Amino acid sequence: MSVTAARGFVAAGGAVGIKADGSSDVAIVATADGRAVPAAGVFTENRASAAPVRVSREHLGKSAGRAAAVVCTSGNANAATGPAGIRAAEELCALVASGVRAAPHEVLVCQTGLIGIPFPFEVLGKVGAVVRARAPGEDAARAAAEAIMTTDTVRKEALAHVELDGSRCTVGGMAKGAAMLAPHMATMLAVLTTDAEVAPPTLHALLRDAVDASFNRVTVDGCTSTNDTVLLLASGEAGPMPADRLGAAVAEVCRSLAAQMVADAEGATKVARVVVTGAASDAEAHAAARKVATSLLVKCSLNGADPYWGRVVSELGAAGVAFELDRTSVSYGGIVVCEHGVAALHDTEAVASHMAGRAVEISCSLGIGSGEGAVLATDLGHGYIDENRTTS
Amino acid sequence: MSVTAARGFVAAGGAVGIKADGSSDVAIVATADGRAVPAAGVFTENRASAAPVRVSREHLGKSAGRAAAVVCTSGNANAATGPAGIRAAEELCALVASGVRAAPHEVLVCQTGLIGIPFPFEVLGKVGAVVRARAPGEDAARAAAEAIMTTDTVRKEALAHVELDGSRCTVGGMAKGAAMLAPHMATMLAVLTTDAEVAPPTLHALLRDAVDASFNRVTVDGCTSTNDTVLLLASGEAGPMPADRLGAAVAEVCRSLAAQMVADAEGATKVARVVVTGAASDAEAHAAARKVATSLLVKCSLNGADPYWGRVVSELGAAGVAFELDRTSVSYGGIVVCEHGVAALHDTEAVASHMAGRAVEISCSLGIGSGEGAVLATDLGHGYIDENRTTS
Repeated sequence: MSVTAARGFVAAGGAVGIKADGSSDVAIVATADGRAVPAAGVFTENRASAAPVRVSREHLGKSAGRAAAVVCTSGNANAATGPAGIRAAEELCALVASGVRAAPHEVLVCQTGLIGIPFPFEVLGKVGAVVRARAPGEDAARAAAEAIMTTDTVRKEALAHVELDGSRCTVGGMAKGAAMLAPHMATMLAVLTTDAEVAPPTLHALLRDAVDASFNRVTVDGCTSTNDTVLLLASGEAGPMPADRLGAAVAEVCRSLAAQMVADAEGATKVARVVVTGAASDAEAHAAARKVATSLLVKCSLNGADPYWGRVVSELGAAGVAFELDRTSVSYGGIVVCEHGVAALHDTEAVASHMAGRAVEISCSLGIGSGEGAVLATDLGHGYIDENRTTS
Repeated sequence: MSVTAARGFVAAGGAVGIKADGSSDVAIVATADGRAVPAAGVFTENRASAAPVRVSREHLGKSAGRAAAVVCTSGNANAATGPAGIRAAEELCALVASGVRAAPHEVLVCQTGLIGIPFPFEVLGKVGAVVRARAPGEDAARAAAEAIMTTDTVRKEALAHVELDGSRCTVGGMAKGAAMLAPHMATMLAVLTTDAEVAPPTLHALLRDAVDASFNRVTVDGCTSTNDTVLLLASGEAGPMPADRLGAAVAEVCRSLAAQMVADAEGATKVARVVVTGAASDAEAHAAARKVATSLLVKCSLNGADPYWGRVVSELGAAGVAFELDRTSVSYGGIVVCEHGVAALHDTEAVASHMAGRAVEISCSLGIGSGEGAVLATDLGHGYIDENRTTS
C-alpha cells in the first residue's frame, strides 16, 4: 500500500507504448471522487527543466495549490523537446482531466526517461483506458509504482501513520530513481498522498522541509536532472492534524523512499553513510559530507573496500568549510583511523571487515563547532559505467 | 630539455628508497651557482595542505620571493603527517641547502604520493648524493622529470622561447600528474625555470595568470589535492624581458604541461575539449564548461562514444549560470546535434565517427552573451576505477 493507503485516493498503472518493450509506462494517482484537493510540489532547480515540470508548476499556480490527479509517464523525459513537448504534457493533463472530470489545470504531470527525444503523441489515445482502470487498494498502488520505473530494479513504496487523540491519518508514497541522484534531487519522481486536512501553503512548506531532509541528502552521481518532481496531495478525509506531526510523517516517507533509491542505485555495490560532526554549522557539515560523498576517488575506494582515509581528509580540506587538519579525525564503522589529522593505530582487520560489507559508515569530526550533517552515497564501480556509457 | 634549458640551472634525479620498487624518487632543480634568484609559487587551495606546501609557502615568505633550489620527492605525499611531516620537509630543504650552499629557507619542496603515511626519515641520508649529481643539460632535466612521476606513464616536459630585438629568453618546465586534476590544480607538481630577469612580484603575478589559464582549465576527476604546487625560478641571465611576453611564454609552457597531464590521465581513453560560447561572461562560460566536463554521466557517455547531448544540456541547466533552453545549441566535432534546445537533424554517422576518436570536441552555445570558456576533460571508464579502487 502506498499512494492508495490514505483515504480518498485511487491509482492505476498500464502500458501505452512509450517504452519499446511494451512494459508498463503510465501511472495515474487521483482523488476517488475527482475533487481537486490541496496539493504541493517541489521541482528540480535545473534551468533546463522538462516540459512536465514547467506544466505542473504552472498548473499548481493556476489552481492555487490544488489538484485532482497526477499522471506519470516513463520511457521518455519529454525534456529538451520544445513547444511540442509542452503540448504533449498539456494533452496528457487534459486527457486525464476529462477521465476524472476535473479541469486540465487540476492535473499535474511527471515524466522520466531519455532527454531530447520527441514525445510520441500517438500513444495519447491509449491513456484514457489507464485512467478508467483506476481503483482503490494495494494492487492499484503497486501497478502505479511499477509504471514509473525506468532503470530501477525494484518498486519503491513507503507508508507512515500519525495517531493523535484517537484519530489517525496516513501518508503514503511511491518513487522511482536510480541514477542522477544529487543535490536538489535528480531523475527522481515521487508522488505522495495523505488523508490529513491541511491548507495548500502549509502543505507546501512541510513538503519542502521533508524533501530537504531526505531526497536532498542522498547522492549517486552528483547530477541534477531536468525532471525531478515530488508531489503531495491531501484529501482531508481524516480531518485536521498538527502540521509538525504531519510533516514528520511526510519526512519519514520521503526518507524511506530516498534510502530505497540509493539502495537501488545503478551499478552500486555499497551504500555509505558519510557523517560529519564538529563543523562550524549544520550547513557546513552537510556541505563537507556531500563533498566526501560525491568524490570520485572516495567512491572508487569504497568500491575497492579500501580504507584510504587520506582521500576523505583531502575532500574535507577542499570542501570550502572551516577546517583545521590537526583537529580532524576520521572513523570507519566507529573505528578511528585518523586522529588529530594523522594516522591512528587501529585494528586493521576490523576496519577491513567493515569496509567489505554492503553498508559502510564514514564518520568525520572536524573539531571546530557543533554542526552535524549526513549524506547517503554509493560506490563507483564498473556497473555504473556499464549502465551509463551508452543509452542505446 | 626542460628545467635546464634556461641559462643558469642544473638538475638531477635519483632514487633514495621512498618508492618500494627502487625507482627514481628525488628530483633537484637548482641555480648553477647556488645563488638565490627570484622565485614564485602557486599552491593548492585545499585546507588540508601537505607539509611541503606549508613549508614552501613559509620559505617563499621568509626569502621575499627568492630561491636557490627546489627538491621534489615522489612516493609519499607527506600529507596528514602532523609535526613530523613538517620536520621531514624542513630537513629535506636543509640537506639540499647545505649541498648547494644556500640558506634552508632558500630551498622549496614539493612531494607527491599517498596521503597519511609517515615520511620515511631513513631515506634522508641518501639525498646528498642526488644533490651532488646535479648537472646542466638534457640528461639531467630528463632524470629530474622522471623522478617526480607516480602513476604517470610518460615524462612531461615543455619549452618556450621569447625573442625580442635580438635577445632571447627561455622558459622550460617539467610536471607530473595523472589524476585528481581539478579546479585549482590537483595532485600535480610543476617546476619551471627561466633565464629572464624579472622581479619577484612580477614573477608571481605572471605565474598566477599562467596557472589560471592552463592547469585550472583541465579536469580529470574534480578532486583537489593536498599537494598541488607550481614553482617558477628566474635566473636573470638572459636579461630583462617585457612581462607580457614572458607571461605568454610561461602560459604556453603551463598549457603544454597541462595538456600532457590530461592526455596521460589515469585510465582515460579520450580527451574531450568542452567549449562554451555565448555565456553571460567568460567566468560563466568557464563554470558551465567545467560542469559539463566533470559530469559523471557525460564522462560515461564519452567512454561509450555515445552522442547523448541530453546530458550536456542537463548539466548546462544545472551549472548555476544564465541559461535558457530554447537559446541553447550543442555540437559534437562541429556537427550541430541540438539547436534551440531541441534535437537537430544531423549526419549521425559523421557524429558517431567523431565520437569514436580519441579527441572529442563538445561545443555549447548558450545564446545569452559573449562569454567564452573551455575545459579539457577525460572520459570515465573501467581503467580509472581499476587504478583507484585500491591503493595497495
